[in-house]
Amino acid sequence: VSEPGEGGFPTLSDLEALASRRVLDHIWAYIEGGAGDERTMRENLRAFERWVLLPRVLEDVSAVDLRTTLLGAQCATPFFIAPMAYLGEIHPDGESGVARAASGAGTLAAFSTLSTHSIEQIAAAAPDGPRWFQLYLQPEFRVSASLVERAERSRFSAIVVTLDAPVLGVRDRQTKGGFAIDSSRPVGSGEDVLPPSRVPVLQGGTYRLRSDAASNWNVVRDLASVTRLPIVLKGVLTVEDARRGVAAGAKGILVSNHGGRQLDGAIATLEALPPIAAALGSEIEVYLDGGIRRADDVLIALALGAKAVGIGRPILWALAVGGATGVGHYLSLLSTELATAMALAGRRSVSEIDRALVERRSVH
Amino acid sequence: VSEPGEGGFPTLSDLEALASRRVLDHIWAYIEGGAGDERTMRENLRAFERWVLLPRVLEDVSAVDLRTTLLGAQCATPFFIAPMAYLGEIHPDGESGVARAASGAGTLAAFSTLSTHSIEQIAAAAPDGPRWFQLYLQPEFRVSASLVERAERSRFSAIVVTLDAPVLGVRDRQTKGGFAIDSSRPVGSGEDVLPPSRVPVLQGGTYRLRSDAASNWNVVRDLASVTRLPIVLKGVLTVEDARRGVAAGAKGILVSNHGGRQLDGAIATLEALPPIAAALGSEIEVYLDGGIRRADDVLIALALGAKAVGIGRPILWALAVGGATGVGHYLSLLSTELATAMALAGRRSVSEIDRALVERRSVH
Amino acid sequence: VSEPGEGGFPTLSDLEALASRRVLDHIWAYIEGGAGDERTMRENLRAFERWVLLPRVLEDVSAVDLRTTLLGAQCATPFFIAPMAYLGEIHPDGESGVARAASGAGTLAAFSTLSTHSIEQIAAAAPDGPRWFQLYLQPEFRVSASLVERAERSRFSAIVVTLDAPVLGVRDRQTKGGFAIDSSRPVGSGEDVLPPSRVPVLQGGTYRLRSDAASNWNVVRDLASVTRLPIVLKGVLTVEDARRGVAAGAKGILVSNHGGRQLDGAIATLEALPPIAAALGSEIEVYLDGGIRRADDVLIALALGAKAVGIGRPILWALAVGGATGVGHYLSLLSTELATAMALAGRRSVSEIDRALVERRSVH
Amino acid sequence: VSEPGEGGFPTLSDLEALASRRVLDHIWAYIEGGAGDERTMRENLRAFERWVLLPRVLEDVSAVDLRTTLLGAQCATPFFIAPMAYLGEIHPDGESGVARAASGAGTLAAFSTLSTHSIEQIAAAAPDGPRWFQLYLQPEFRVSASLVERAERSRFSAIVVTLDAPVLGVRDRQTKGGFAIDSSRPVGSGEDVLPPSRVPVLQGGTYRLRSDAASNWNVVRDLASVTRLPIVLKGVLTVEDARRGVAAGAKGILVSNHGGRQLDGAIATLEALPPIAAALGSEIEVYLDGGIRRADDVLIALALGAKAVGIGRPILWALAVGGATGVGHYLSLLSTELATAMALAGRRSVSEIDRALVERRSVH
Repeated sequence: VSEPGEGGFPTLSDLEALASRRVLDHIWAYIEGGAGDERTMRENLRAFERWVLLPRVLEDVSAVDLRTTLLGAQCATPFFIAPMAYLGEIHPDGESGVARAASGAGTLAAFSTLSTHSIEQIAAAAPDGPRWFQLYLQPEFRVSASLVERAERSRFSAIVVTLDAPVLGVRDRQTKGGFAIDSSRPVGSGEDVLPPSRVPVLQGGTYRLRSDAASNWNVVRDLASVTRLPIVLKGVLTVEDARRGVAAGAKGILVSNHGGRQLDGAIATLEALPPIAAALGSEIEVYLDGGIRRADDVLIALALGAKAVGIGRPILWALAVGGATGVGHYLSLLSTELATAMALAGRRSVSEIDRALVERRSVH
Repeated sequence: VSEPGEGGFPTLSDLEALASRRVLDHIWAYIEGGAGDERTMRENLRAFERWVLLPRVLEDVSAVDLRTTLLGAQCATPFFIAPMAYLGEIHPDGESGVARAASGAGTLAAFSTLSTHSIEQIAAAAPDGPRWFQLYLQPEFRVSASLVERAERSRFSAIVVTLDAPVLGVRDRQTKGGFAIDSSRPVGSGEDVLPPSRVPVLQGGTYRLRSDAASNWNVVRDLASVTRLPIVLKGVLTVEDARRGVAAGAKGILVSNHGGRQLDGAIATLEALPPIAAALGSEIEVYLDGGIRRADDVLIALALGAKAVGIGRPILWALAVGGATGVGHYLSLLSTELATAMALAGRRSVSEIDRALVERRSVH
Repeated sequence: VSEPGEGGFPTLSDLEALASRRVLDHIWAYIEGGAGDERTMRENLRAFERWVLLPRVLEDVSAVDLRTTLLGAQCATPFFIAPMAYLGEIHPDGESGVARAASGAGTLAAFSTLSTHSIEQIAAAAPDGPRWFQLYLQPEFRVSASLVERAERSRFSAIVVTLDAPVLGVRDRQTKGGFAIDSSRPVGSGEDVLPPSRVPVLQGGTYRLRSDAASNWNVVRDLASVTRLPIVLKGVLTVEDARRGVAAGAKGILVSNHGGRQLDGAIATLEALPPIAAALGSEIEVYLDGGIRRADDVLIALALGAKAVGIGRPILWALAVGGATGVGHYLSLLSTELATAMALAGRRSVSEIDRALVERRSVH
Repeated sequence: VSEPGEGGFPTLSDLEALASRRVLDHIWAYIEGGAGDERTMRENLRAFERWVLLPRVLEDVSAVDLRTTLLGAQCATPFFIAPMAYLGEIHPDGESGVARAASGAGTLAAFSTLSTHSIEQIAAAAPDGPRWFQLYLQPEFRVSASLVERAERSRFSAIVVTLDAPVLGVRDRQTKGGFAIDSSRPVGSGEDVLPPSRVPVLQGGTYRLRSDAASNWNVVRDLASVTRLPIVLKGVLTVEDARRGVAAGAKGILVSNHGGRQLDGAIATLEALPPIAAALGSEIEVYLDGGIRRADDVLIALALGAKAVGIGRPILWALAVGGATGVGHYLSLLSTELATAMALAGRRSVSEIDRALVERRSVH
């Protein structure tokens, strides 16, 4: 764990502003931008302000334990690094650096299909993990299957299938910022891997999308047939879809709206979480990403039923500011803040973070 | 369909700011201004932020179909161009240019009584339509009847009767901006056509308004007697008035508050829509205008019962920026955004945009 | 009625900003300031944004009648000029000018005990009225009685007794602005007339206030015994106090919080109005002041049960901008705006402004 | 009581801005900063805007009495000075100056374990009190006991045990501002007194906190065994903990979240108060601190069940502006404002401030 002071930011409050000065404008547009008018991106944050914490006092909190298990793997924290694309565009340390920082902290990290470094490079950088592999469903199933097999061979411990990107969202800030990946370089995971397609094409009165947009619930069973790894479905926002996922064999549901980068207007993840966790939290693990910034956000999501929460943009900020060291410092700051918050809330362990800790905020 | 890049704006986010730099101040005051303190104008927009989308995943969305029928006519999109006055003041392409752009996109356009180009010029510019004619009730019924007959002869396919303007609203921004039409030029539709009157005159303790303000529900039947075209009532905001309209023979109700330009304080159209659609949506077609900016707005209104939605100010912005080309580009951007949003929502066709797609947003 | 253009402001939107440039800073602090942190002053305005209008269409609105009766007197408008102190400090036309403008418009005006011009001067300036006299309860009842008798002799037609000022509110903006009346000049109504006292004095652990703060409900009966004029109680905010007032013989209740200048934190008048009007509106007349700026505000308050509404600060602004002419112009603009709004709402007369016109706005 | 004008600020509105110019930046960061993103700090203030006052008129309010008893002691005001650390860092007058000002006003003051001046110096500065001693539970109980005994000997009349600081909150503004106490100087209360610890230390997967974080409910009984003074528990936010406290022998509950400086996200104190006061207000005394700025805040909290309210940051502001004189002036301004507000609300004494005075504000 890095020491306070390393990585260049003294507190979590400084991180976003510092990062904005470290990357080129078009990269910043990519990091910060959301879909459409960015309603969902804003709502992801605001949803946390609708809940307040009800701490308990005079519990013995001389020792606070942040550890949890995620799909059977020991993790040092109930937060993990959400999968994000193209980390090498933000800092040369890229996915390998993030993997080293996460592994050093004992924190789970999920890595994207659209990585700068390959599956194998990531595994080599931090052999001890824990880590998950995020899969974009590929137009050809054999490509998806090949990615999953490589991840399994490289000792990734779960497959996170992204379901909210049959086509790329309309991202104005990114478009205007001119964000573009050097297409002469293949993504790290291989030359035949394709990102979601951007522009629907009008043909005969109908918009044709990429063939992987044709995926249906059978693909979950197909994936389960080519791997022993547990499957997590990412991008689910309704109880109905979560139930379908469990019926199809998923072991985890990651409540996500892609950080507000896909369907603008979609419900905030924190608003979508409680009914899904209530309906299915006893059968499978339910996670959330979107809007997690500080320890109180973690407490709220866990109290509302999340087994763990994914951290997105703050990891990009920390990576931009200090590479792997910056990410390690971020994880350290957030861990100590979470330990502090749990002590102040009178909760000694993750299992003590219960529904009684939170209450809907009174309306302004 | 125009290509991205044409018309001068890369994304929908840029349009309003770009347009503001292309027109004279008094024209901008006309475009942007509303009635009174502009409460209703603002509320029209804010109402859309009170709903969120609940997308479905793993539907096969490899083909998305935006087409619909409006009063029996095939239309390429479930949005249409709302009727707006004096388009020639904004760009020389005027109504004819808008007609060409709409026809090229297969999108329905409605044209105002108070047009710069005449009914016949509009029809000649884009013979294939589809298009509707908007009628301001005239002090003399024979003038109204004459306009309707000319529209019918020019193959307009419906008459949209504006009911929310028995007198012109108090529009401070427009007044201060000095917006004025050159009264030496007749409006396009003819020399005997009159706009709604502005200033009530006090006589004997009573304010006397223009004689067409005397219109009552009989006028709907009178109009039906002089045309075979279906009649749409524009400006209805209550279930009671919508029922009266249906009883009087209307085939469509356009829930509208004139873009917040008439009665300030009037309910936002999106708030007025659900009870009207619930009560009458199975008997007639219900539409909405006011506040539609992006694809998620379209989805919300359709999910709440609108058969289609009218686009207002964004068309004026696009016209200001790039004339007919700009309007075409706007329609193209909005269409691809809508196709994208439908795919991301798991809805392949307009008929699949159901009530389950939306949920009232949690209160902040 | 003055013509648009006279008095120096083209629309109601411009009035406040224009006025701010016409008066000295300490006068402006007096006009604009409220009590404490000015919560109630802001709330008075915001309360109107919580209601929306549901207009009716295709009513015959060729003639719109704004007239009403207030305590039996014919008035041209359902709004009146609320009583305000020291009008001569704002413009040399003072109370006499306001009286002339109001009388010219046929609008009721109420004049304050703390006037620059005397009761008799006001009556002489505009003999035809209609006008009411506002009474601050004086430490000695004989002074109150004398004021009432003078008002009655000068053909004022009602006495408005202010009940929300047993002591002056804490007004920081006014204090900092240094607003002070030249105490060598008596107020217009006479040398023995005293304003509410400002600073409570601590004596023996108890704050002693001015002796008129000792008033109780008997004072209403006492006043009734010295005048035949109907008594209106101003500053009532609860049903309980309104009932007491009716029991004591009041003929009208003016729901008011002194424009947010007395008890900061007090309920907005529009929120206080509905239960009082529902409970007592059939027995006596109920009025409201506080936050009325535009025609839609008038419609909302009348729809919620007010017989008429008082206008406060806008009259001061108009007076500052154009003296009596400015006030006349304001009344003219507001009257035509109200006639327009009634036409657009489908209401031909004040009696048609019913509860169905308004609906609680959806929450943001 | 100081006269208006002394101490350098004419109204309560000016105080915060004036103070910001009188202290060094790092001190200002200490005064103003809260924990994390300062949600709770902001919410403490906003919670007061969710209630409105319903004044009564025509009560005889010629004399208004602010006096109350707190745990049996006579106090001139129903507000008291909340305990705050390191007052000598803000102004050389320090705790002794605050004690003199409070005693002069007859207002209760609570003094922190982490004082610049010692328990005995404070008592000597203002022998008449009334005053309370705030205790941070010390790692060794003998140190806590010693502090309590010294306070009792110095005629403090109650012990306020802070329960919401088993570890120091994460305070970004303070960290960035570089606030630090000169550790070569012991805190005023003695060399063996320790502040709450800042950084949890990770050992073997568990965060170890200072041993006083091990405190449980037995500590309340242990304290009761070494003093005859009544014990007030500070930092309680739930009914459950308040009940435990009463069962353990506490005579008062101070509903507090440490001014938003400990657990960010914690419920606003005004939201936490009503259920605690309803459940236990008849058995013990319930107080509140957090967000009290003006007289209406005091009225709201008392109407919702607080026996008295603590003032925090405004005292620091007043101390920064004018030392003991500034604090005295603040207490004088707030007292006269409260007397004024009670008169305007129709409440002559603290006991008349009842639940009927307040109503939940309508939602915006």
